[in-house]
Amino acid sequence: MTSTVTVAVDANGADLGPAEVAAGAAIAAQQGVRVILFGPAAQMQPVPEGVTVVDAPVSIAKVADPVRAARSTPEASVVQAVRAVAAGDADAFVSGGSTGSALAAGLFEIRRDRGIHRPALALPIPVPGHPVTILDVGANTEVRPEHLVQFAFMGAAFAQAVLGVDKPRVGLLSNGEEAIKGTPLVVEAHEALTARALGSPIMDFVGNVEGTQVTAGVADVVVADGFTGNIALKLMEGVSQKTMAAVREVAMASWRGRLGGLLLRPGLRAFRDEIDPEGPGGAYLLGLRKLGVVPHGRFTRYGFSQAMLLAARGVRADVVGRTHAALEAAGALKAPAPLAQERAGGSEPATTVGGS
Amino acid sequence: MTSTVTVAVDANGADLGPAEVAAGAAIAAQQGVRVILFGPAAQMQPVPEGVTVVDAPVSIAKVADPVRAARSTPEASVVQAVRAVAAGDADAFVSGGSTGSALAAGLFEIRRDRGIHRPALALPIPVPGHPVTILDVGANTEVRPEHLVQFAFMGAAFAQAVLGVDKPRVGLLSNGEEAIKGTPLVVEAHEALTARALGSPIMDFVGNVEGTQVTAGVADVVVADGFTGNIALKLMEGVSQKTMAAVREVAMASWRGRLGGLLLRPGLRAFRDEIDPEGPGGAYLLGLRKLGVVPHGRFTRYGFSQAMLLAARGVRADVVGRTHAALEAAGALKAPAPLAQERAGGSEPATTVGGS
Repeated sequence: MTSTVTVAVDANGADLGPAEVAAGAAIAAQQGVRVILFGPAAQMQPVPEGVTVVDAPVSIAKVADPVRAARSTPEASVVQAVRAVAAGDADAFVSGGSTGSALAAGLFEIRRDRGIHRPALALPIPVPGHPVTILDVGANTEVRPEHLVQFAFMGAAFAQAVLGVDKPRVGLLSNGEEAIKGTPLVVEAHEALTARALGSPIMDFVGNVEGTQVTAGVADVVVADGFTGNIALKLMEGVSQKTMAAVREVAMASWRGRLGGLLLRPGLRAFRDEIDPEGPGGAYLLGLRKLGVVPHGRFTRYGFSQAMLLAARGVRADVVGRTHAALEAAGALKAPAPLAQERAGGSEPATTVGGS
Repeated sequence: MTSTVTVAVDANGADLGPAEVAAGAAIAAQQGVRVILFGPAAQMQPVPEGVTVVDAPVSIAKVADPVRAARSTPEASVVQAVRAVAAGDADAFVSGGSTGSALAAGLFEIRRDRGIHRPALALPIPVPGHPVTILDVGANTEVRPEHLVQFAFMGAAFAQAVLGVDKPRVGLLSNGEEAIKGTPLVVEAHEALTARALGSPIMDFVGNVEGTQVTAGVADVVVADGFTGNIALKLMEGVSQKTMAAVREVAMASWRGRLGGLLLRPGLRAFRDEIDPEGPGGAYLLGLRKLGVVPHGRFTRYGFSQAMLLAARGVRADVVGRTHAALEAAGALKAPAPLAQERAGGSEPATTVGGS
């Protein structure tokens, strides 16, 4: 546990530029994480202590087809960063802000962990008082019940290892609490999860969770297919922003309001800090042989540093190993594929982002 | 247009009791709507002017299996109210608060309109500045692309006839704006809608709408399957409540906050009024031969009166006829079923609530 963790970071793609990512790396390095930055070296001078810079100016963060770009641009910074992890030169990777290219590169270069059907994107959402991690938020538009079962274990292991939740309560997002509510996919996953989670040391399956309950603190991890999960997270973002904007508007509409807003400001600022999406570091790519984190492109150095620090925590706490052990104990690992297929990347249909 | 509209109302099921529903009926009657109340007559005395009371004390609002109860309890108040509409004694129905029983009774007694695949539940959500109607919010857990196409026209006709939106902008809820984003269901519905909506006089199809855009005012109507729509609406409710509760908490945490909250109160009250779910009257059951409205059980007399008044507006503006005409013009009506099947209720699989 005392060995230094190395994180490979793609410095391209951030709205504020590579220098902001480098500033995040400096913060992470000060806290004991070794960082290798892949990006335009000229824009990241002077190199912070504890940080290595590899000059990789080519960016595929803004391309139209990130899957194709990740395959055809080996010199791209994100591909180089991910390849460093695949080669064992780093323990985890952090992208500078483009989900598509990071996801594609991660899938191609690092590959799925043994027995995992599909990787998933997990996003920890800082709901006040009750943070909740939603997965999948977009890697797999369509899934099968056994995929949701694995997502549940992956999310639980993540919440335990990275977010420090003791025995995460895991719920299935559905249109009603009863076990019979939901699509056939959800109903079947519910039944399978009830059986698989029995006696699990890393998760407490709490059953179906309705939309109103996602923010109510009844579950630490909420499992959904990538279509529903993506809609859910963006709805939460939209409604929360809209509501805060309305409160702000009220506080600007009159002298009474302005004075009231002034008095409330310190309290509201603390609230805003609590729900700051930069705190949890971004979306986590789970189910690969190594951990990957995709901060939002609009993040500041703080968010990028959190991504690196939490990725390092995930490595130290062995989120990949924990996931594997829990799935194995629950009998939820995928049966080994025939050798020929295994070498071609397994018999499973590719993840959406994989593009095939 | 000057003929009086009659609304049949189930007075059972409201959290505040039948008297509150009767008080709502009194408000609607004062504004020119004829109301027939079905419920415990003894609890609705004196009978308001313009209101008729039919003693129907039996309630199936709280039963475990509303579908079975709606079939096997002809004396239930909701069944009687719906039957009055089916018989032509009333033009639309309003339930006292139980979605399940109202939906089941509506489906059994009033039946689908000619050429409609599936009825849907539409909920107008009072987003500040940009109200948005989501459908389906729970009548159909699973749908086919042609169902989503019809939901789009049903929602547009509703927004035009009941909410007074000139030419409603209709979007498909998805995990990305591009036409290729979404499940195969959504992608196929997108393609079909693009073709069907071309030149439609009642709708402007704006394509896919992401979660963040639902509250951004880009669409007046958002179409989804009942599983996703139900999750979406409850998430919006949960996040909005949670955010307002957090603001309230800040305003209670210190003397500064308390004073600030006091100053902001009038403005926040106006905001709360604007987003009051009682304003739009509840969820609308569309696609039947007559209009039905299901207010939330927790509503006060105001919400119930709104349900009756807006149901009457929907009748006057002929929401059913407009939907039919628009679907016919777009070539999106279902082909007539063979006679034997038509008599048995059509060849379509039943709506979720139908239970079979």
